[in-house]
Amino acid sequence: MARTCPVERPALKTIGLFGKYGDQSVGPIVGSLCEFLHGRGLTVVLEDATARLVRDPKAKAQPVHEIGRHIDLAIVVGGDGTMLNVARSLAPYDVPLIGVNLGRLGFLTDIPSDSMFEGLQRVLDGDYQTERRLLLCADVWRGGKVLHNHNALNDVVINKGQVARLIEFETYVDDEFVTSTRADGIIIATPTGSTAYALSAGGPILHPTLPAFIMVPICPHTLSYRPIAVSSDSHIEIVMTHTGNQTAHVTFDGQTNFGLQDGDRVSVRRTETPVTLLRPSHRNHYDVLRTKLRWGEKF
Amino acid sequence: MARTCPVERPALKTIGLFGKYGDQSVGPIVGSLCEFLHGRGLTVVLEDATARLVRDPKAKAQPVHEIGRHIDLAIVVGGDGTMLNVARSLAPYDVPLIGVNLGRLGFLTDIPSDSMFEGLQRVLDGDYQTERRLLLCADVWRGGKVLHNHNALNDVVINKGQVARLIEFETYVDDEFVTSTRADGIIIATPTGSTAYALSAGGPILHPTLPAFIMVPICPHTLSYRPIAVSSDSHIEIVMTHTGNQTAHVTFDGQTNFGLQDGDRVSVRRTETPVTLLRPSHRNHYDVLRTKLRWGEKF
Amino acid sequence: MARTCPVERPALKTIGLFGKYGDQSVGPIVGSLCEFLHGRGLTVVLEDATARLVRDPKAKAQPVHEIGRHIDLAIVVGGDGTMLNVARSLAPYDVPLIGVNLGRLGFLTDIPSDSMFEGLQRVLDGDYQTERRLLLCADVWRGGKVLHNHNALNDVVINKGQVARLIEFETYVDDEFVTSTRADGIIIATPTGSTAYALSAGGPILHPTLPAFIMVPICPHTLSYRPIAVSSDSHIEIVMTHTGNQTAHVTFDGQTNFGLQDGDRVSVRRTETPVTLLRPSHRNHYDVLRTKLRWGEKF
Amino acid sequence: MARTCPVERPALKTIGLFGKYGDQSVGPIVGSLCEFLHGRGLTVVLEDATARLVRDPKAKAQPVHEIGRHIDLAIVVGGDGTMLNVARSLAPYDVPLIGVNLGRLGFLTDIPSDSMFEGLQRVLDGDYQTERRLLLCADVWRGGKVLHNHNALNDVVINKGQVARLIEFETYVDDEFVTSTRADGIIIATPTGSTAYALSAGGPILHPTLPAFIMVPICPHTLSYRPIAVSSDSHIEIVMTHTGNQTAHVTFDGQTNFGLQDGDRVSVRRTETPVTLLRPSHRNHYDVLRTKLRWGEKF
Repeated sequence: MARTCPVERPALKTIGLFGKYGDQSVGPIVGSLCEFLHGRGLTVVLEDATARLVRDPKAKAQPVHEIGRHIDLAIVVGGDGTMLNVARSLAPYDVPLIGVNLGRLGFLTDIPSDSMFEGLQRVLDGDYQTERRLLLCADVWRGGKVLHNHNALNDVVINKGQVARLIEFETYVDDEFVTSTRADGIIIATPTGSTAYALSAGGPILHPTLPAFIMVPICPHTLSYRPIAVSSDSHIEIVMTHTGNQTAHVTFDGQTNFGLQDGDRVSVRRTETPVTLLRPSHRNHYDVLRTKLRWGEKF
Repeated sequence: MARTCPVERPALKTIGLFGKYGDQSVGPIVGSLCEFLHGRGLTVVLEDATARLVRDPKAKAQPVHEIGRHIDLAIVVGGDGTMLNVARSLAPYDVPLIGVNLGRLGFLTDIPSDSMFEGLQRVLDGDYQTERRLLLCADVWRGGKVLHNHNALNDVVINKGQVARLIEFETYVDDEFVTSTRADGIIIATPTGSTAYALSAGGPILHPTLPAFIMVPICPHTLSYRPIAVSSDSHIEIVMTHTGNQTAHVTFDGQTNFGLQDGDRVSVRRTETPVTLLRPSHRNHYDVLRTKLRWGEKF
Repeated sequence: MARTCPVERPALKTIGLFGKYGDQSVGPIVGSLCEFLHGRGLTVVLEDATARLVRDPKAKAQPVHEIGRHIDLAIVVGGDGTMLNVARSLAPYDVPLIGVNLGRLGFLTDIPSDSMFEGLQRVLDGDYQTERRLLLCADVWRGGKVLHNHNALNDVVINKGQVARLIEFETYVDDEFVTSTRADGIIIATPTGSTAYALSAGGPILHPTLPAFIMVPICPHTLSYRPIAVSSDSHIEIVMTHTGNQTAHVTFDGQTNFGLQDGDRVSVRRTETPVTLLRPSHRNHYDVLRTKLRWGEKF
Repeated sequence: MARTCPVERPALKTIGLFGKYGDQSVGPIVGSLCEFLHGRGLTVVLEDATARLVRDPKAKAQPVHEIGRHIDLAIVVGGDGTMLNVARSLAPYDVPLIGVNLGRLGFLTDIPSDSMFEGLQRVLDGDYQTERRLLLCADVWRGGKVLHNHNALNDVVINKGQVARLIEFETYVDDEFVTSTRADGIIIATPTGSTAYALSAGGPILHPTLPAFIMVPICPHTLSYRPIAVSSDSHIEIVMTHTGNQTAHVTFDGQTNFGLQDGDRVSVRRTETPVTLLRPSHRNHYDVLRTKLRWGEKF
């Protein structure tokens, strides 16, 4: 599923550029990327908001919901948050992504901006590795209808509202009852998301290539819970118990919210097509874990 | 501080009765308690809302903010939640409490309603044990002023708002900097509260007699956090970092809320007088842990 | 890998019977199994030690290292420990197994002895499900030579010796350095083993179908460790650091031991052929988790 | 109990010096300490093994079991391990200790050797803080007799033998049954020991001034265990269950061992007199936690 493997890609001729939303410091980097790409005879398309950060670009601009149809590669300048956002938007178009990080190394944005030309040149020359990342797709059902639908590259999180102390829900996997839980919430994470919120809630790390999801409860009202990893082919459902007064919400990658009521059902599967990341060179995931999380660092 | 010891108490002549708020099933139990107490020549005072649950009682009713001045003992009929509520209200008056549980054994309400007369008779005869429980007192400071003040018998919890993913704060103990944290929140719990929300967040159990508070972060954004227990004579302060967009709130025993902003300081100490619980007979706390939490239960 | 799927199996004509080692109570059950199988015209082979528990069986007996060549199905009467043992012994012969539990439900032995004939009849009629379980194979290398080799269905555990307080080792996955650890030890577990020792050491639960191994440190000397799950196609190596005085050992399914020294390398992969379990009917793994582990049980 | 407070101490006239056992690098430091102390007209006594590390000292040497009677202060040069050892040896004599660390900051040895004269001068001038640390005292009972007795400044640990997978024991506190446990072992730690082995096993941090012990199971065979902190006035007993084949041992500060059998009882209390540490200046314990453990360090 998500492992590094050679896949035939179309030639990379039209390149989309996406900058961290509203971050002025992104402007000059995107500007020099435009120059670099034009210099190689490539077509450049700027995402609308990114276009506003760059002075006088030769590139044309397009809104985010149209751009996916036209580009062969997306270069994202920002942090992992920007990458999550762009990856979800482009998911229907199967456009591969490259992340250029501003300053700090990210899990997804791992090309430093000060050496980005080298890395990009290698990718444009076809010398790259392809990494597939599972993407979650969630439907919110109420009374027989889907009220809301959203993707998530990191996690789908069901969480208590501000006032509530606890929520109550049942979990099903492939139509089998798993458990009934009272907790602050539950996180359903991809391997990509296993190093994000799920980690804070006590979950394990899943290698990015694993075809698995991890379910991690948030402050469960029991001593006997443990995170559980299930196949990424599984269909996971969280059903809000009828208690009469639940206030909960479901969050996608920590970026968008949808309110939940008693009886609502959040149905989660992987999308058919995963997200594709291109990397100019092999990356040791354990290095990133040690560097970013100080994982396993001895006293 | 909180240990069982003989203390000279005034004779128990005026008894206050408190029922679980709005629970009709409490009525008959409170009614039979009135009869029992009148039969022994004692004066009975009903808390206002409780009075509405009892038909034609001979007892007079008083609002909760006045009743503490007039009673020698409070009998609370309900669960631990009701007990928390009444204990906080009566804190200024140093009135001892007895908890009668409805159905399920509680940590604080440990006299079953079906054998309550035996237990109460023993207490009225002076044959009881006294248990002291630490009470927290929190001030919320903003710009040099105390905006809010509240007690807590279980815990003072600082938590993210509904939309926020993380909050950021610094912790000080006795004016010493402890740590700067990004997390969903932090729990400052008494030993009484160590078996409540703090336990769900991964905290240890503190025996009720320990003169200690436990600080437990909620989903901290680090791999290297551990709960820490400090002396109950400590002054604990949580200072909301100036990030420009924090939405947080502080909750007392999970029952009342107050909104927090950047720069707000929540200052927590123990109250001078702890809460006093009377027990008709010795109770093994470990039995309660095993029964209520299934603690240490083998596979 | 380990998922339920239809596989063409040879007809089940010769059946091997294996009882819990030295357990007299197994005798009558094995005896009645012999009768049942003979009554259906099948050939029965008893494992040598099991033969000693049964009076006057019509079946012939064979030593455990020969029996695998001759049987089409192994019926194991005992607990999960017996099942682990037999599964490892039969691994080279790709013989499917069925577990009959004595008394308590096991993760692997899930046919109750008092209803075993029904279940077995269904299997003999071809009405069964096939479940594949990953098997680990470990080589211990010292100075360029393999000193020891062993399989494990649950886990390969590297642990400190009795006197030692800590051991020190480096972990590699697919020749990539993962981390250097000081700890009491480390557990490399299959999904099957994720509910055994790995769970006690704080690991997550992996669904039995996941093509993954989980690495869980035992009492690591760091605050920042988390269990990590990697692909079951991975090659995992643990290298004992040269500290001059390590006393450690490697254990397979908690049943056999081998001593380790400075510089020793334990190399772990999955075997090419997994273990095959037959089940007369679909089993909900989450039911077993809740029943055996009291997993997720609410206060 | 263990808090910083002014205590009248005798004048510090005779000083004992203790170096890390067998560490040649300690010699020059101890030598210069001798010179420094002689220069101030003080009497110096070297512990026997330490005397062998110093060339031609003017100081006399005494065995460790005699030295306690003669000295007013012990200066320990080494790491926390050396400090644990010396503190236990001197416990009967109520001699205060100062720790000089070699290189890395310790929890107990917090005067860097390169600025030790300043710190010591301040202490000799009477300008110091006194910190009390709880000391554990354990008796091993078998068949009505005490077979072994040992102190521990960090922890008393009951652990499985090398071959055993699990041990089984019951825990009692103040003659009340706490729980029956199957596990690799259990740690009973002082606040001092809460940052040592107990931390690796998942225990919380206890501030050094807390009058409490923490009990932390090692790899318990249950999902529902949590560490529990009890009063340091408690009497803790661990009783090895009669299973017929237990191989276990009890370890004191990870430095000495004693073998345990079925039915053995390990009885643990605090010693009457705690260990006294002198510090030339106030130390923020949280600083040490952050520095040594990287505690609370953000991603």
